[in-house]
Amino acid sequence: MNDLAAQPLAGEPAARVLVAGANGFTGALAAKIVWDHPRLQLVAATSRSDAGKRLDALYPRYRVPVELTELDLDRVEGIDAAIVAYPHGAAAPTDAALREQGILVVDLSADFRLRDLETYERWYGEHGAPQLFGQGVYGLSELYREELREAKLVATPGCYPTASVLGLAPLAEKGLLADVSISAMQGTSGYGRSSDDLVHFSAMTENAFPYKTEGHRHRPEIEQELAALGSPAPVAFVPHLVPLDQGELATCFARLTEPTSKEAVQALYRERYAGEPFVHVLDRPPNLSALRDTNECHVYVTVEEHGGVMAFSAIDNIWKGASSQGVQNLNLMLGLDETEGLL
Amino acid sequence: MNDLAAQPLAGEPAARVLVAGANGFTGALAAKIVWDHPRLQLVAATSRSDAGKRLDALYPRYRVPVELTELDLDRVEGIDAAIVAYPHGAAAPTDAALREQGILVVDLSADFRLRDLETYERWYGEHGAPQLFGQGVYGLSELYREELREAKLVATPGCYPTASVLGLAPLAEKGLLADVSISAMQGTSGYGRSSDDLVHFSAMTENAFPYKTEGHRHRPEIEQELAALGSPAPVAFVPHLVPLDQGELATCFARLTEPTSKEAVQALYRERYAGEPFVHVLDRPPNLSALRDTNECHVYVTVEEHGGVMAFSAIDNIWKGASSQGVQNLNLMLGLDETEGLL
Amino acid sequence: MNDLAAQPLAGEPAARVLVAGANGFTGALAAKIVWDHPRLQLVAATSRSDAGKRLDALYPRYRVPVELTELDLDRVEGIDAAIVAYPHGAAAPTDAALREQGILVVDLSADFRLRDLETYERWYGEHGAPQLFGQGVYGLSELYREELREAKLVATPGCYPTASVLGLAPLAEKGLLADVSISAMQGTSGYGRSSDDLVHFSAMTENAFPYKTEGHRHRPEIEQELAALGSPAPVAFVPHLVPLDQGELATCFARLTEPTSKEAVQALYRERYAGEPFVHVLDRPPNLSALRDTNECHVYVTVEEHGGVMAFSAIDNIWKGASSQGVQNLNLMLGLDETEGLL
Amino acid sequence: MNDLAAQPLAGEPAARVLVAGANGFTGALAAKIVWDHPRLQLVAATSRSDAGKRLDALYPRYRVPVELTELDLDRVEGIDAAIVAYPHGAAAPTDAALREQGILVVDLSADFRLRDLETYERWYGEHGAPQLFGQGVYGLSELYREELREAKLVATPGCYPTASVLGLAPLAEKGLLADVSISAMQGTSGYGRSSDDLVHFSAMTENAFPYKTEGHRHRPEIEQELAALGSPAPVAFVPHLVPLDQGELATCFARLTEPTSKEAVQALYRERYAGEPFVHVLDRPPNLSALRDTNECHVYVTVEEHGGVMAFSAIDNIWKGASSQGVQNLNLMLGLDETEGLL
Repeated sequence: MNDLAAQPLAGEPAARVLVAGANGFTGALAAKIVWDHPRLQLVAATSRSDAGKRLDALYPRYRVPVELTELDLDRVEGIDAAIVAYPHGAAAPTDAALREQGILVVDLSADFRLRDLETYERWYGEHGAPQLFGQGVYGLSELYREELREAKLVATPGCYPTASVLGLAPLAEKGLLADVSISAMQGTSGYGRSSDDLVHFSAMTENAFPYKTEGHRHRPEIEQELAALGSPAPVAFVPHLVPLDQGELATCFARLTEPTSKEAVQALYRERYAGEPFVHVLDRPPNLSALRDTNECHVYVTVEEHGGVMAFSAIDNIWKGASSQGVQNLNLMLGLDETEGLL
Repeated sequence: MNDLAAQPLAGEPAARVLVAGANGFTGALAAKIVWDHPRLQLVAATSRSDAGKRLDALYPRYRVPVELTELDLDRVEGIDAAIVAYPHGAAAPTDAALREQGILVVDLSADFRLRDLETYERWYGEHGAPQLFGQGVYGLSELYREELREAKLVATPGCYPTASVLGLAPLAEKGLLADVSISAMQGTSGYGRSSDDLVHFSAMTENAFPYKTEGHRHRPEIEQELAALGSPAPVAFVPHLVPLDQGELATCFARLTEPTSKEAVQALYRERYAGEPFVHVLDRPPNLSALRDTNECHVYVTVEEHGGVMAFSAIDNIWKGASSQGVQNLNLMLGLDETEGLL
Repeated sequence: MNDLAAQPLAGEPAARVLVAGANGFTGALAAKIVWDHPRLQLVAATSRSDAGKRLDALYPRYRVPVELTELDLDRVEGIDAAIVAYPHGAAAPTDAALREQGILVVDLSADFRLRDLETYERWYGEHGAPQLFGQGVYGLSELYREELREAKLVATPGCYPTASVLGLAPLAEKGLLADVSISAMQGTSGYGRSSDDLVHFSAMTENAFPYKTEGHRHRPEIEQELAALGSPAPVAFVPHLVPLDQGELATCFARLTEPTSKEAVQALYRERYAGEPFVHVLDRPPNLSALRDTNECHVYVTVEEHGGVMAFSAIDNIWKGASSQGVQNLNLMLGLDETEGLL
Repeated sequence: MNDLAAQPLAGEPAARVLVAGANGFTGALAAKIVWDHPRLQLVAATSRSDAGKRLDALYPRYRVPVELTELDLDRVEGIDAAIVAYPHGAAAPTDAALREQGILVVDLSADFRLRDLETYERWYGEHGAPQLFGQGVYGLSELYREELREAKLVATPGCYPTASVLGLAPLAEKGLLADVSISAMQGTSGYGRSSDDLVHFSAMTENAFPYKTEGHRHRPEIEQELAALGSPAPVAFVPHLVPLDQGELATCFARLTEPTSKEAVQALYRERYAGEPFVHVLDRPPNLSALRDTNECHVYVTVEEHGGVMAFSAIDNIWKGASSQGVQNLNLMLGLDETEGLL
């Protein structure tokens, strides 16, 4: 993989990084962000089904001149950290094998997001490495920053929980939330690379629809995190697919447990996120196109006439909703500046 | 306008129809539907700003070979009914002038939708024909069918109220609704023809956003109708613009005033809409592309795990949400089969 | 298939029709057009891979309430005509089996389009029914109308040849064409339903590209037909995929073998297509959206400053470029009005 | 404009830059590129109609926190260079006024692209600064690099000429070109910000069309440059609008004045552009999405079966086709590395 010599690093790398499952949408993006990162060295990008192909042939706009190889867990050498972009279920055993070799692991799958095994099994089936269950740190960087600095295994949150929880956290922390209903929308990159009639251009153009109306597995994750923050409210959640590629919006309705003015709620948000490099509290509703290809989260909150709160939280679903948040976590784990390679 | 000779009519027309404001999106579509209608004769399509242009030059795919003329209210002759597609405020005086001449009026604007003048003035400003205020029949055909058969002046509902109220009516009628929150999305045709940076293709592609987050004037209309049906609940409502042309989805969350099973709620919907030619109760979530260019409303309802109801209601915003519903109303007013020209 | 009872027929059907391969884009559309046709009865819609599914579940907007069945060529009964929407190569043997049973066949594949077997084999490989090769009538209705009235086996042209040849025929017939270069573009429906990374919405949105730059198999078909008309010119041809669903445009450059004014060329086109129900000679360049979902071909021709001709020819690639042209051909074969079910 | 303090410069700026007309698509992008440039200081971004607004309110994704001001040519101080993004005709007098004050000028309009005044007047009308006509250097960086290093006034080429000429230059320089025909396509950003029915999302989605079929003013510019390179061939040219935002493709057909193999032509291109940082000669056809938001030009050339050449040249129309090429030129004028701020 001699092309790797060309990676533009600023001196000695802080870590040599493996991206496993680099042929999918989030893995490929993780490889690109590592490649462009001034302190991380991309040592290998792996894929079983696309081994031998070059990443810049599969994803020309990412411009990563690296050949995909097959991951052999028995011969992993010279690697400090791994970003694992495998499907749910398949990630856990690989994470376990990498951890046994002392490698820091950022998992992009759901395998370590939930803290209750029964809930995991209900939504995802049998767990692939039960001995590690509960040991991952939840990688919502803004909420678990201190834990992440010490973490060895990080579970990067789902895209919907990232948007939803950041959109509601300031209220959840104060215990102000009740009766939460979230209507979210996402582009087709969230559906993954797996080809399917549903995401054929002919099927999606001039179309939009709700899906997983009988229960989406990101709902228990949202409930877990809002409860952890202080608002153990049940959540109604439904996602929609809309005809765009990257971008996600969570539109959140909630009742406030005590009447609070719009000004007070907006001030609470501004204060809560004042020091955050990636969370921008807007004074107008967010636009998805404004944050495409960034690690940002744009939040707007208002209180409507009948006293309910409406919070809008927008991210790029494969950046902040997956790959770039994974690197934000890795920065924290390595003691780097959290924003390195992400601005 | 000798091209009009070519209109494919089935015998003697039931009414000679004027479409006023036929250069805008909803007026042009109303003209097309009247033109294709076997029992209605399109006698004139008017526009101040585009008079002299042909409708099939402005809207080639509608294929209406008619020249737009300027409306002279002093010389309206040989007209039985008018569809008025003017902006809010401008419609009322024209409606009044047409009514004085005994012409049946289907108004596509908001001027006669609300029943409370104060509410009207708050959201739309001064009314253009206060002497007629309160005399329009609300043109949600499925709910006001009998009144519409006798009506002389009809206020075709807004697109969001059409989708939302049809999506919730079976529950509202039973008084089962509480704490309604509606997140709706719509394509750019809902924004109207008026050119604007916002709907430039470059601005909308790969974009989506909420708008009117501090209050949309369709909210009081939704509240008025749910209350009229039996559920005087406050409603939280927010619309979004998504990158498609025609199509609208209302995603409605509500609390049920008494616990009801999913099966019972679904049965209630099927029963309520059993005889309706245009409302289809689906057994899966709706797709916008499935009903594009039709007068249909596709509804799906479910009860989520925590007991709340989620109702999804999809329409084509400029068809059932405006122009074709206008013709559905006109069919009723004229004693024609309600579906004439609309299937 | 008792739902078929609902098919809206006007009296006795002129033919009982089978659509084979009705799960693909062109087969499904052919089934829809037959279903809506006042004189054709849709007796069966078949598919191996999707047998048992309903067509209106796969293609909701076509509203054909028919269950797909598996085609058993040994038990084809009660069928007068078949539209075969199989891939190239697979169609010929089925066509042959149907013809042996006296069934009229409209083939939408390439299997009988070319008249030179060697050319066929070069571009498509071995032929599936060589005994029938050369016996199909080329189904460009406007050019082979008389032959089609007598035909038993019709090869519906490729979409690019349909647009290109109709765009150049008036000049080709006069022997005026030389040095033809055609740059064509098409939407993703032309790529077929087969899922593929290339037509994933995420890959196509905000993208466009030429393909088959080293030779597209529609080129020899275009050359064959231009030569048959009187202009045996070599043709340079390249197609592009653009981010839309249905629609195709052929932009044709050519040298005129004798200098001819723009007015004369435009008059020639108007005259040539004067009586044609589906070919519209415009006085301005065509728009794809104006003819979506129709059997029309919109042509505009001009002579540019240096004396070369530029002809623009637009169709809906799966309508006039495939399925509706197939029905146009079938109308001719059955002695029906050519426009029946297509206006 | 104290926010300007935040501009991330690497030491002393090489030039203090004014962007005039920064409210339009190309001006705003020029301001963004200057803002992000490590050696250029954005001193002012001006606009008459949007003065007082912030650039990051008009174009959020560019993140330039600068307030637009009105340009007062009598009080231009502390400025070394200007990028003028005015409409054709309006640019020349401003260019002249800036030049009189010794300011380097990069003009993005057509005012100094053509070398023949009569041709200019035919396509654009009266010239706004005839005393300067002929004094601008044509800013196609790859072809006029040496002249640009000395230039004081640069005419950045039109987007179609940039793509077309780069796509054909290797052949033109060898005198190999004859009978050139170019079919080009572009996204809606090429149409400019000016709102218009044509670029309403509802008009462009699922649409595509040729325009300026009777002569586009970029044709004489292409002919001028091909002739200057050594191939004074007449050119047939027609552009198309397709439903995407940024991106442009020129599909070029030509006859070769002497028979040349595909391998030889491809080798010629590779050799010609070997050292170019922004022109990439591909071994497969280009994709527009691969170069979005870059200053790159992707070229692929082949020789088709009948001996004609087909060259495909892709750019981002508002980057390499306008704003980033303007900065590339400015880098050369200032003696900076040509790629500074553009990789």
